[in-house]
This record gives sequence, structure tokens and C-alpha cells, in this order.
Amino acid sequence: MKHTKVKDLLNSTTTLQEVNAKGWVRTFRNNQFIALNDGSTINNIQCVVDFENTPDETLKRVTTGAAISVTGTLIESKGAGQKYEIQVNKLEILGDSDAEKFPIQPKNKPSLDFLRENAHLRVRTNMFGAIMRVRSVLSFAVHNYFQQKGFVYVNTPIITGSDAEGAGEMFKVTALPFDNTPRTEDGKVNYKDDFFEKETNLTVSGQLEGETYAMALGQIYTFGPTFRAENSNTSRHLAEFWMIEPEVAFNDLDDNMDLAEDFIQYVIKYALDNCKDDLAFLEGRLLEEEKSKPQAERSEMALLEKLNFVLENNFKRVSYTEAIDILRDSTPNKKKKFQYIINEWGADLQSEHERYLVEKHFKCPVILFDYPANIKAFYMRLNDNTEPGRETVRAMDILFPGIGEIVGGSEREERYDVLIEKMKALEIDEEELSWYLDTRRFGSATHAGFGLGFERLVLFVTGMTNIRDVIPFPRTPGNAEF
Amino acid sequence: MKHTKVKDLLNSTTTLQEVNAKGWVRTFRNNQFIALNDGSTINNIQCVVDFENTPDETLKRVTTGAAISVTGTLIESKGAGQKYEIQVNKLEILGDSDAEKFPIQPKNKPSLDFLRENAHLRVRTNMFGAIMRVRSVLSFAVHNYFQQKGFVYVNTPIITGSDAEGAGEMFKVTALPFDNTPRTEDGKVNYKDDFFEKETNLTVSGQLEGETYAMALGQIYTFGPTFRAENSNTSRHLAEFWMIEPEVAFNDLDDNMDLAEDFIQYVIKYALDNCKDDLAFLEGRLLEEEKSKPQAERSEMALLEKLNFVLENNFKRVSYTEAIDILRDSTPNKKKKFQYIINEWGADLQSEHERYLVEKHFKCPVILFDYPANIKAFYMRLNDNTEPGRETVRAMDILFPGIGEIVGGSEREERYDVLIEKMKALEIDEEELSWYLDTRRFGSATHAGFGLGFERLVLFVTGMTNIRDVIPFPRTPGNAEF
Repeated sequence: MKHTKVKDLLNSTTTLQEVNAKGWVRTFRNNQFIALNDGSTINNIQCVVDFENTPDETLKRVTTGAAISVTGTLIESKGAGQKYEIQVNKLEILGDSDAEKFPIQPKNKPSLDFLRENAHLRVRTNMFGAIMRVRSVLSFAVHNYFQQKGFVYVNTPIITGSDAEGAGEMFKVTALPFDNTPRTEDGKVNYKDDFFEKETNLTVSGQLEGETYAMALGQIYTFGPTFRAENSNTSRHLAEFWMIEPEVAFNDLDDNMDLAEDFIQYVIKYALDNCKDDLAFLEGRLLEEEKSKPQAERSEMALLEKLNFVLENNFKRVSYTEAIDILRDSTPNKKKKFQYIINEWGADLQSEHERYLVEKHFKCPVILFDYPANIKAFYMRLNDNTEPGRETVRAMDILFPGIGEIVGGSEREERYDVLIEKMKALEIDEEELSWYLDTRRFGSATHAGFGLGFERLVLFVTGMTNIRDVIPFPRTPGNAEF
Repeated sequence: MKHTKVKDLLNSTTTLQEVNAKGWVRTFRNNQFIALNDGSTINNIQCVVDFENTPDETLKRVTTGAAISVTGTLIESKGAGQKYEIQVNKLEILGDSDAEKFPIQPKNKPSLDFLRENAHLRVRTNMFGAIMRVRSVLSFAVHNYFQQKGFVYVNTPIITGSDAEGAGEMFKVTALPFDNTPRTEDGKVNYKDDFFEKETNLTVSGQLEGETYAMALGQIYTFGPTFRAENSNTSRHLAEFWMIEPEVAFNDLDDNMDLAEDFIQYVIKYALDNCKDDLAFLEGRLLEEEKSKPQAERSEMALLEKLNFVLENNFKRVSYTEAIDILRDSTPNKKKKFQYIINEWGADLQSEHERYLVEKHFKCPVILFDYPANIKAFYMRLNDNTEPGRETVRAMDILFPGIGEIVGGSEREERYDVLIEKMKALEIDEEELSWYLDTRRFGSATHAGFGLGFERLVLFVTGMTNIRDVIPFPRTPGNAEF
């Protein structure tokens, strides 16, 4: 007979004469009660074994991690905590799990570090099952949001021949024999002999290609892997991460901020509506984790409260100039508690400043906009009425409590002449980006977009604190197992 | 005032006093009729300019490709072909497009080759606008299908430290200084100094990592970029393509075939329901293209007919052994018209044989299953009752007319001992795949999955004939522009 998912059994509206469930043993107690999980939900179904009529041989094999099949009757449970349980008539061991060897023993409370090293097995724990289901639902929310609004999903290239994006250090991609690369006369690697007959890298952003599509299809978004070869061994950086980059023709900076805020609120609401059990579990986990912290470092809000807070409150929109004033007058600046003291307009904000604004001053998500031109990327739109020496661009960053920057975006410089001048000043190769400049040569128009680091969103929604715990197989300096 | 999308204006149920539309000029005739497109639909909205009261200066700038803003009244159109049009009160040029320089002039009927070289601009044509909208809707259909069924979307790693998958030639990924790589004593590149401190490649498949997740979450799917460094300059191969790989615990080969067939029918139906205008256009394009072919080479069915045929007919399931019998007795085999003559059981099927089966013999999509073990991958489940010397595995390939293989999958070898024996025979490093073997060490169970090349699906649904035309920025040998 066909097996039924544990989720469907637990959601049954009636008892059932004969059901079959398959899954993995989480616990087995009193030689009688199996907690069975099949990944369809964080909840286990209790399977009650008739141990007197089951061979000892079989009972011994019911160990944590073993795959089993149980056939029986779905009856109302007398125990607390579940409505239904399976009265087992037939118990079959599909795959054993040697209790001495299976690394994920709940009793041992494996550390997050240990679980990271066992990324292929950690998903068998409640915690990682919950995280990965939430991640999946959030992904779907992203597509739902944009597709409902008529955005076109665009797969920008992963291998890129363009090295002028300047968003960060890039990984090289090659099919050359690596130990013995062909060389040109001056001793450099001869890329003409490589697969693509030129130097290629892994993309750091699909924005520039995305812009060419927005200028034809109007509203587009990307959602794909992105790479940075930066030696950042922090809890917020990955060498391989997933990024969402919408780009909209005829949108200005205000539209862009509206879109980003509405989008983030939509996907968080979607997770709250569709991941109740998983988020409840993760809220409990976070409370537990925080018990070991000093009172001052604990979150003021529990996980669900924090997510609801983001839904119910507008993000605070603050210009860079206002932010600098706030920071200059702040207690940690005056008392020289910041590592980087803010003295002057033009200073690049560090993560300590962002955290102060979000976590101490405004106590809500903040959108900073109108940054100094010289600390932002070449393609951002120069504001019209700025003082000489204090030029600003229509950039925006969204800062989240505990996460820092979750979104970076801008209205783009749509004026060919202004863009060219900027590129010249920054010595960006016009020839290399000629295709990008075509968007400004032919039918240019105001447009804007942003990038959202998906893992930072998952981090925020799940309440986890290390980004390596919200992607299945994290890539960081020195780590590319699996 | 806020602009309204062309799609919404065309779908209006009433005339409207004042509307604003923004988009790009497709054509401008009689100094009066602008066909305006904004990418929201393949259809243009006709904008009627009061040319007597519009400065010549402005009218001259209304050229193909120019970005404009029109404000006016949405009225019922007297012309044929559209219900509504805009009576323009105010015409504003947002971005010029020099008619002498803009490469995409509809009059010139640019070739597909020329358009490929201008991949950043080709999306401004009706054809590529339609293809990319259909591609986007198909992507969403993929997520819809799996999410509705409770599958968890898993992002398997793009950069992989595992080189034992054996699905094809891999691209290397490195952050080493390429002209001057550090070396070990024996003169080889010292990967210990590289970013990940080991040799890394771009993934050829997420299957093995996906299996580890299926054995915890039950039903998972991947949908991400995949890479092959193979020098295949054909109309069906890309070096970078998107692949969908579902993997389901407790599914056997029959379940796997059922899932693949149901999935493909769902996504095609979804496109038919949601891309009517684009598919109608693409059907017309295909008819036009086929006019230049000899009668015998033309499709027997028009595009929509072909898509509906796939929905309405079960895929024909044929064992490899039956297929060999059919091929051996076929006219092209007897008359030695095949390049590779089929004499014996065990022969690997070539594309000419697959095409014969699908296009001549069965005339419908075909699922071939139970292939000889020695022409298939190590992880496929050995059939229990096969004759010695004629061992088969529970593999399946789905073959589509005009496309060839669109799906490859199998039930996986879940028995640790059998799998190890197979790996030994093929000299696959057990140590390297120890994490994969853990799925068989701990709680192993029957499971199955498949991979579907997304671009081949888009090719089939759009009726295009070259895979380079269904991905925004194709990567093939010698091509990595943008």
C-alpha cells in the first residue's frame, strides 16, 4: 500500500483503519513508543508497537536514524501532545542505523560546529529540518511576490566574461590544464586557449545584465547564486550565497524603497503564515540559546514578536546626512566607544554605526539613502541638487537589527554622458562595458533596483546567528566539503 | 501621475479619462500612430499622436527603440486589432534611440545569429520578449508544482569539492594568482594555498547532495545552474544551464516515472494557461520558419497542437530491451541508414535511435527504462532478477520529439554493500564520497529522482530550435560575453 506523509496523518480529520507511514526513527522509548519523522513536518508521529508480539531481533533494530515502515491503524492518542498515533500492526526495518556509529545522537546535543562539519546529516535534526523548510518557503514567497506583480524571472549568467562590475573579489573559472597552463610570449596565461577563449569569473552580481532586461521587459528579478572570493571569516559572509535582484524600468529611488519594503514584509508574512510549527520551534531554540548569554546581550523580543514587529512598522527612512548628524551626537561617539569615530560628513559607515542606528537609536529596520557619491558604485544616479564637494547618489541600504545590511540598491544613472564621465574618473573600461552602455544609448529611462542577500533574510526569519547554518552546504575560506 | 502597464491598459474593461504609459517605441507610422511596448505583454498599445499640435522636433525623436512617456485618454480604438488605444495629450521623450545606430531594426529582420551576438538587446524583440516571459512562467510552474506537493527546495552547492560525480567534464574554480600559481615540491599547483584549501569545481549535478537531503526531508528538489566543460558546439548543449532535480525517499522507479510525467504535463499546462499571447506568437514564428524548409522536414503539428498532444497522451513506457528489439527490426537499421547499426543488446543508444523511437515509431514522448548496468552511472539501482551478463539498472530517460533526452533519472542503489562493490569496480574513491555513503550507512531506504534540463523544456515549449535562444546569456565554447 502507498504510504501517507506524517504531516497528512497528523492533520487527519478522522481515525483511519489502515495506514502506512515511512520515515526515520527519532526516538524509541519503553520498547514501545517510536517517534517517527519523515521530514514533511517538524512533528513526529507516535507509533505504538505491540512489543510482546514483535521479535526482539526487530525491536533491537529500532534505533535513532533507522528507516522504517509501519503499517497499522490511525487512532486517537491517549498520550499528551498529539491527536493521533499509529497502533502498529506491522513494523519493517528498511535501513539500519548503528547506534554506536550514527553521529547525530540527540542525547549528545551536538554543537553547531560539529553539525556544520556534518552538513549532510545535520538536516536530520529538528533544528536544521525547520531551517531548511523555512528557507524553502521563503524562496517560494520570493517567486510568488514577483510573479504576481508581473515581474519576469531572469537567469543572468553565473560565468561572466565581464570583470568590471567591481562588487568584490572574483573567483576565476577555467578549463585549462591547471598544472601546465599555456602561456603567451610574455609568460602570462593564454586565455585564448581556454574554454571561453577569454578570462572568465564567477558572477558577483547579475545587476548589469539584469538592467539590460529591465529596459526591455520593464520589471525583472533574478534569484541565483553569487560569489565573493573575499577572505571574510565572519558569521555574516559566505563565498557562495543566493541573491535576489529586482530591477524596474521607470522606478525612481522612492519607488525602489517602497518595493523593497513591501517585498520584505510580504515574504516574512508568507513565512509566518506557512511555517507556524517550524518558527515556533525556532523561537524556542533561540530562547534556549539566549539563556546562556548575559541579560544585556539577549534580544528584547522573541522571534515571532520580532517578525511581527517588522510587518507592523514602517521602515524608518533616513538620509545619510541625517544619519551622520545622529551618529556624531551619539553617546558612543562622544565617549569614543566606536572603533571608528564619526567626525565628518563623507565617512563610510561601519557595521558598529549601522547597528547603533538600527538597534539603539531607531529600534526598527532603517533605510539609509542619498549616500556620498564617492563611497558608492559608479552606476548610481547622481542627485541633481547637491552642493559641490558634497555630491550624493540615489543609493539606499536597508539595515536590519542583528543582521546589518540586508538590501543594497539604487536608482541607476540613466544619463549616458554623466555615466561615461563617472566611468572615466574611476578608470572603468568603457569598451568592456559597451553592452551595458547600450541601455543608455538606446531608449534610456529612469530605473532602479536592489540586491537582497537571501541567506541574511533566512538568518533574520529563523533567528539563527551564523549564516553557515541557513544554507545547506556553506562555502567559506577553507571549506568546500561535499 | 503613476504610469499603468500596457498589459493592464489593454485588459481594461472601460475607457479611462487620464492614463499614463511608459515604454519603448516599436514602430511609428504616418507621423501619428506609435506602437508602444513596455515588456509587460507581447502586445503593443497604439498611441495616437495629435501631430498637428506636436512640435516636429519631438516627432522626429519618436524612433524605434526610444523610451517615451504618453499621457492621454484611453479610448475605444477604431482600428482593427486592438480594443483600446491612447489618444495622446502629452508626449515626452525619455531616452532617444538613434535610428542610424540602434542595431535592432525590425525592417532588417536581424538573423538569430546576429541577435545572439546582441544578447543584451535581442530581448527587445517580440520573439525574445515572448521566449523570456514563457521561460519565467515555466520557472514559476516548476516551483508551484513541487511546493504544492510539499517538496522542499534545496540549494545544493555550485562550487563543489567533490570531483567524483562523473556526470561530465568540470570547470575549475580558483582564487589563486593564475599567472603565477604556488606549487608543491613535485611542481603541481598547491591547492592548499587556494581559497578553499583544496581543488574545487563547478557542479555538474546536485543529485548526490540532494540525496542526503531527501533522506531527511523526504521530498526535495533543486533548481539551479549546472555546468559542463564539454566542447559540444551543438544546438542542444550549453556549458551553463539550469537543471531541476527532484529526489524522493521511498519512491521506486515506477513512482519516479509517474512523478516525471505528471510534472512535465503540469508545467506545460501551466504555460498554456498563462502564456496564451506569447505562445500564439511563437506558434506563428515557427510556422514562418518552417516555410523555408522542405515539406518532409516540417513538423507534423503546430506548436500548440504539439503541446496539447503531450498533455493528452500518456508517455509510452518501453524497456531498453524492447527498444533494442524495435530498433534492430527497424527499416533504417536493416537498410543501414543509421550511422550506428544496432546489432546487440548492450549498445548505447545514439540520438538517431532515440529520434527514431520517438518521432517515427511511437510518435509520442517515450520513457525508456531498465538500461544495461554498464552504460549507466554507479549510483543506479541494480535490478534483482536480471540474467548474468545482462544486468540492468533501474534507470529511465524521457525522450521528447525534436529535443531528445529531456529527463534522466533512476531509482538509486540503496544497498550499501552493492553500492560499494560497484564503486570499487569503477575505481570511484570511497573516501571522497564517504558523506554520500552515509545515506546508505544510516537509515537507508529506497529512493529515486531525476534531472530535467530546464532549457530543453523551454526549447520544447517555445518551439525554438537552438538552445542558445532560450537562455538570456548563453555560454558555449568560445562564448562568454556579458
